[in-house]
Amino acid sequence: MASKLAAECIFCKIIRGEIPSFKIHETTHSFAFFDIGPLSDGHALVIPKYHAEKMHELPDEYLAEAMPIAKKIAAALGSENYNILQNNGRLAHQEVPHVHFHVIPKPNEKEGLTIGWPAKKADFDRLKERAANIKL
Amino acid sequence: MASKLAAECIFCKIIRGEIPSFKIHETTHSFAFFDIGPLSDGHALVIPKYHAEKMHELPDEYLAEAMPIAKKIAAALGSENYNILQNNGRLAHQEVPHVHFHVIPKPNEKEGLTIGWPAKKADFDRLKERAANIKL
Repeated sequence: MASKLAAECIFCKIIRGEIPSFKIHETTHSFAFFDIGPLSDGHALVIPKYHAEKMHELPDEYLAEAMPIAKKIAAALGSENYNILQNNGRLAHQEVPHVHFHVIPKPNEKEGLTIGWPAKKADFDRLKERAANIKL
Repeated sequence: MASKLAAECIFCKIIRGEIPSFKIHETTHSFAFFDIGPLSDGHALVIPKYHAEKMHELPDEYLAEAMPIAKKIAAALGSENYNILQNNGRLAHQEVPHVHFHVIPKPNEKEGLTIGWPAKKADFDRLKERAANIKL
């Protein structure tokens, strides 16, 4: 599917070169650059050349490229510990309404992503029912 | 590249069916199931049928499937807000040493992933140099 960009989106402007960026890599479907508000040294973003606010709105060919590119960035940065993160919706910490995949090195406890993990025990009966009925 | 599983890995055992799971979906390269220690209702995992501890060690064909499958799960769950997360290394909160992509609904402030965002201002000279020299 051909790329689709929005006039007023900051990431679409970066893709078009209307706003400068510290570009890392570019393909037909994707653009990667360093985050200018990094959580750690090397924090990078991979974005599709297709304007969609949330991940589930993206055509598969754009989604398929994201992780292979993130892999190349992670390998080039040489980080031993790192997180891949993609947020959907304000409540889930999304700040720019154009899908972006973060590659965030975690060099030490203080820098990089910090994660809260309020896990609970699953309701196994409910999971069994959901697994049986979910339609992908 | 053919799938490669490890004898003693808990996720490889789930893929082989030696440990039961609440399976959502399966393809040649991938397996998806509900997390039994969920951060929120619907918390799912997508794992490659290839034993690798970290994302950058995975062949591209396994990586390429992860987000299209995560997308299908997110759409099926119908979550308005959700996070995609993949952790590499203990310091980065990885608990099972087999690559796994979390799909975590964020229904409200308390449930789901909580994120700390200790952003700093980038050193633009350093970013410029890095962007010019990074080799993917």
